[in-house]
Amino acid sequence: MSEKPLILVTNDDGVTAPGLRTLIGIMNEIGEVIVVAPDSPQSGMGHAVTVNSTLFVESVKIDDGPQQEYSCSGTPADCVKLAKSEILNRLPDLCVSGINHGSNSSINVIYSGTMSAAIEAGLEGIPAIGFSLLDYSWNANFEATKSYVKTIAQSVLDNGLPKGVVLNVNFPKVNANDIKGIKICRQAKANWREEFDKRKNPQGRDYYWLTGKFVNLDEGEDTDEWALKNNYVSIVPVQADLTAYHTLKELNSWHLND
Amino acid sequence: MSEKPLILVTNDDGVTAPGLRTLIGIMNEIGEVIVVAPDSPQSGMGHAVTVNSTLFVESVKIDDGPQQEYSCSGTPADCVKLAKSEILNRLPDLCVSGINHGSNSSINVIYSGTMSAAIEAGLEGIPAIGFSLLDYSWNANFEATKSYVKTIAQSVLDNGLPKGVVLNVNFPKVNANDIKGIKICRQAKANWREEFDKRKNPQGRDYYWLTGKFVNLDEGEDTDEWALKNNYVSIVPVQADLTAYHTLKELNSWHLND
Repeated sequence: MSEKPLILVTNDDGVTAPGLRTLIGIMNEIGEVIVVAPDSPQSGMGHAVTVNSTLFVESVKIDDGPQQEYSCSGTPADCVKLAKSEILNRLPDLCVSGINHGSNSSINVIYSGTMSAAIEAGLEGIPAIGFSLLDYSWNANFEATKSYVKTIAQSVLDNGLPKGVVLNVNFPKVNANDIKGIKICRQAKANWREEFDKRKNPQGRDYYWLTGKFVNLDEGEDTDEWALKNNYVSIVPVQADLTAYHTLKELNSWHLND
Repeated sequence: MSEKPLILVTNDDGVTAPGLRTLIGIMNEIGEVIVVAPDSPQSGMGHAVTVNSTLFVESVKIDDGPQQEYSCSGTPADCVKLAKSEILNRLPDLCVSGINHGSNSSINVIYSGTMSAAIEAGLEGIPAIGFSLLDYSWNANFEATKSYVKTIAQSVLDNGLPKGVVLNVNFPKVNANDIKGIKICRQAKANWREEFDKRKNPQGRDYYWLTGKFVNLDEGEDTDEWALKNNYVSIVPVQADLTAYHTLKELNSWHLND
């Protein structure tokens, strides 16, 4: 029998988040697990890396599972970089990030710490998956995600992933019985209409809280938003090449050098 | 004669950065300028947004130019969101971000605060451009960039940009006479090999500084890295849709629902 796969687990909600604890439990059934996760919540951090500050890492023991765990003072992308360079003895066979408390579908992918960890792992040559549940609550119920997480992780271990591509997996907030299956999707063209909640601090100075409303005007039935709304698990293959290839010709027609 | 275009200027190096001051000077020649920039450097912030903390904005006066200026306690993406929702009376005709002190070519785009501001503006429906000079020094010489920045900004005002696309413009660190022209490019497939500088703090606890080496194994002559190495100004059209469309078929062949 071959060696167990080595699996790096991380997230952006912090090392004690129930979604991470669920993911660790599932990965322990598949392989040898090493956890390197932020010591505090990092939601909305996008693909931030810590270049102007120091990073601390410490070994932690949070439950009785067989995994090794480390908490890190940095961002999710920092965790992956540190894990690879300073903690792991070899490149892991898989990196999983999550399970995030809240959606990373559609445009949320670019703000997502969960997905930035997966993308960072992909850049390091590690097959990687970000998992998210459409429930922001700390007490979210991850039960229905378990068999799907295991199937998808095992499929990536079996098949590998196309070069430069990682998976963005989102789960609808429904019971296991109501999930209709898995759909491979494209990212819906949606965005956030921000609304700022303007207040005065005790000294009378104005300040703002960022809030917003998610607006999806993309009616395609091949999108992650459609899949989630119709009780499917959505998988979007995601790449770090942001080039808008379809526009190269148009831009060349501007003749900027004339 | 038509009204002057309204131009939003931001960056990630902070409101006092020489690269921003240069960009403001150039934009004052083209339109009516409003600056909303971070009150401190935000390099490496990726597409972070401030959801767990408050945001402060204040009117500032830094030089004698005709522009209105505001400094903001948030990230570059926060600056754009706040400008649109709370500061500007109408959607600007253009958003320019930079001129960054340091490269945002190739994979740097995903870690870049400069580009996150441009991408955020694009999502808000504002034609947007990020400008960066391949010189990290605070005292970088932006002289050679000026005529190109003006040409490119004016072209975007004249032509608009394809929906969902913003421009990532990088300048080689050479004198104006040595710049060979502008090239429309794709993002080179390169990445960072991180190296952590491990130290002990005065209490004997280990900590790390993130450093790294940029490695480009992409030999294409249509990339931004090639253009910059050959003394061209590179322009990569960038989109926020991360879907790896070319892999949808392969993933469907996994038959995850069987």
